[in-house]
Amino acid sequence: MTTHSRDVSAIIDPVKLDRLAEVAVKIGLQLQAGQDLVMTAPIAALPLVRRIAEHAYKAGAGLVTPFFADEEITLARYRNAPDASFDRASGWLYEGMAKAFAGGAARLAIAGDNPLLLSSQDPAKVARANKANSIAYQPALEKIANFDINWNIVSYPNPSWATQVFPGDPEDVATAKLADAIFAASRVDGDDPVGAWKAHNAALRRRTEWLNAYAFHALHFTGPGTDLTVGLADGHEWHGGASTAKNGVTCNPNIPTEEVFTTPHARRVEGHVTSTKPLSHQGTLIENISVRFEEGRIVEAKASRGEEVLNKVLDTDEGARRLGEVALVPHSSPISKSGLLFYNTLFDENAASHIALGQCYSKCFLDGATLSQEEIAIRGGNKSFIHIDWMIGSDRIDVDGIGKDGGRVPVMRGGEWAA
Amino acid sequence: MTTHSRDVSAIIDPVKLDRLAEVAVKIGLQLQAGQDLVMTAPIAALPLVRRIAEHAYKAGAGLVTPFFADEEITLARYRNAPDASFDRASGWLYEGMAKAFAGGAARLAIAGDNPLLLSSQDPAKVARANKANSIAYQPALEKIANFDINWNIVSYPNPSWATQVFPGDPEDVATAKLADAIFAASRVDGDDPVGAWKAHNAALRRRTEWLNAYAFHALHFTGPGTDLTVGLADGHEWHGGASTAKNGVTCNPNIPTEEVFTTPHARRVEGHVTSTKPLSHQGTLIENISVRFEEGRIVEAKASRGEEVLNKVLDTDEGARRLGEVALVPHSSPISKSGLLFYNTLFDENAASHIALGQCYSKCFLDGATLSQEEIAIRGGNKSFIHIDWMIGSDRIDVDGIGKDGGRVPVMRGGEWAA
Ligand SMILES: [Zn+2]
Ligand SMILES: [Zn+2]
Ligand SMILES: [Zn+2]
Ligand SMILES: [Zn+2]
Repeated sequence: MTTHSRDVSAIIDPVKLDRLAEVAVKIGLQLQAGQDLVMTAPIAALPLVRRIAEHAYKAGAGLVTPFFADEEITLARYRNAPDASFDRASGWLYEGMAKAFAGGAARLAIAGDNPLLLSSQDPAKVARANKANSIAYQPALEKIANFDINWNIVSYPNPSWATQVFPGDPEDVATAKLADAIFAASRVDGDDPVGAWKAHNAALRRRTEWLNAYAFHALHFTGPGTDLTVGLADGHEWHGGASTAKNGVTCNPNIPTEEVFTTPHARRVEGHVTSTKPLSHQGTLIENISVRFEEGRIVEAKASRGEEVLNKVLDTDEGARRLGEVALVPHSSPISKSGLLFYNTLFDENAASHIALGQCYSKCFLDGATLSQEEIAIRGGNKSFIHIDWMIGSDRIDVDGIGKDGGRVPVMRGGEWAA
Repeated sequence: MTTHSRDVSAIIDPVKLDRLAEVAVKIGLQLQAGQDLVMTAPIAALPLVRRIAEHAYKAGAGLVTPFFADEEITLARYRNAPDASFDRASGWLYEGMAKAFAGGAARLAIAGDNPLLLSSQDPAKVARANKANSIAYQPALEKIANFDINWNIVSYPNPSWATQVFPGDPEDVATAKLADAIFAASRVDGDDPVGAWKAHNAALRRRTEWLNAYAFHALHFTGPGTDLTVGLADGHEWHGGASTAKNGVTCNPNIPTEEVFTTPHARRVEGHVTSTKPLSHQGTLIENISVRFEEGRIVEAKASRGEEVLNKVLDTDEGARRLGEVALVPHSSPISKSGLLFYNTLFDENAASHIALGQCYSKCFLDGATLSQEEIAIRGGNKSFIHIDWMIGSDRIDVDGIGKDGGRVPVMRGGEWAA
């Protein structure tokens, strides 16, 4: 931590920071008495880690174990390490975390890394290090991806991130602005954030129940540059807001969250669609994406900026050209209203309705937990190493639900819920 | 990290801090190309952790994995956690570390915690948490205690520690003074610290070779309040400075280090001895210790301050009343000359000749690695859950070596080497 970035944390509102910690523990995790907690955080997020540890212990936590990552140490590796270093990862640590999760621990991640930290490093080394880490992380990630345990992600306004979001401002001003944006999006700017989250979760639940009652065969998106029919997977289920893990704990994995989302049918997507916000992918901005689908597969892809990176993404594997998620977010969501590009999916995917290339969520099927990989594929679930969300919603987008019989129900009009 | 303590780190000489990092990697660890490194550190020591990571990668490290502990989070646990928390420990993490060591990783610990951090917490909770942690740490500690791998401890002038060592000074002045004391004691205040350590290691090696050639039956300490004969274990071996781990790497486990040390005979210590410096034990100062030994066992113990704590220590187990180490340090050692009490064994035991209550080091026997626990006990090696060093040397202490035949050789006169 440089002397510079240290002073910056002093300008972050301590009351709202404490509320964010409280929400992370009580709503994000619903941490249970006696439950251990494993945390990961950028070292700049120490003030939030401390507040979360305090709320966790007050909630009856067994042991809170934080792990800190430091951007300077990461850069020291890229600048100084021998070539062989970039194929190494701490598998022993991730295996240990998997053991902790299997033993009942909850998981909290604090996001806030500089999204462009590695943008000037050798992309081949970055890719190798990411791959080694992904493989090593697998045993721990599985417990989270399978929703075996209650888990949560919240964000901290790391100065190195803030200066990306507010490039025209000095670091302290940018950090204060990003802090305010995070607090507003995370619904901790009012006096009763826990109450606000309960109301928000109830609203999202009503919305998923409404969509699940219709059990649409497809959604039809129309608007400028967009005429897209997204078939929904057979036996799909809409999710949003709070959700119950296999350990029986109801938690909010993402803070903020505005979306309701489900699994599209990987072989039933037709038409064309245009992105409505830039996509930030590993340090590159991809703008004005325009793609055409045939039988679920992207057969044509253009972008006004970053087209090469987009095509590389689409060539990752067979599933990278098909959809794994479709999500609805009203244009009036607080994150959308901020007008900011956060360069962070946790925020940006909650600013507008979106689709994701790649891997689907098995939990977005009725009785998803009991389905085999093969059954999921038969029902239209997509499989890929990637999952990349990009925004297709705006105040000029209409969405219809199409029933099995072809009947239409207005879902969104001008970017807002129609019913 | 408070804003306060952050500013303090800016006054620590960056050139000497970088030299300390270089010495830790090149002398302390002799880190090998391709070797992974597991580090633990107080979060305040981040500036040193960053320098060490850079030197480690320059030396060819595979992956550097740092773990940070935060005093505020530790206190949050004592202030807020439910009672059951104090029997918990992260065994999964220590088991993972043991796996990393078994896989070839080296180990570096940065010391610098506030020695009085827990002094106002419930001693029963502190004891329970320590016990749970010790048991969980066992698999990782074994690899270090058995010297399977190269390992090292260095220190960082954490402001919370500095204000204990220099209670009369403001935090920034105290930190600057402690930094200077650490740099001097760690021999990084000159232009060629690596060269200085090579010379120092050679001097310690000559001293251990001289003592090992005599293979004394006992040492006889005399001085004010002291007339103590310390029998040396059968087949004992003197160690000091650099030493070769079982993985073949020669490293300096402690920085600083001034002592040469060996294993006394647990059943052949006779006479009385008076401490020459206060002993800081878990937040309590024990002063003017005076004990009497009969057949290796302490049969009488007094102290002008902290006598109750001393007697509790002696009652830990049967081995706590017997000696596990005897060490010689000349009165002119740099740490002794500083005149400081560091409240940290890494420094204080290198300020004067000392003895340790409790567990012996199996490496301080000829062919120690091949001896069973039983064989070590037969030769006079002591066994205990504790190992507590306390100072008995000064400029008024003489030491004689006594041969098997009763012949005497002057070893120290007036606290300095006699030959
Ligand atoms: Zn989404
Ligand atoms: Zn997504
Ligand atoms: Zn010693
Ligand atoms: Zn010792």
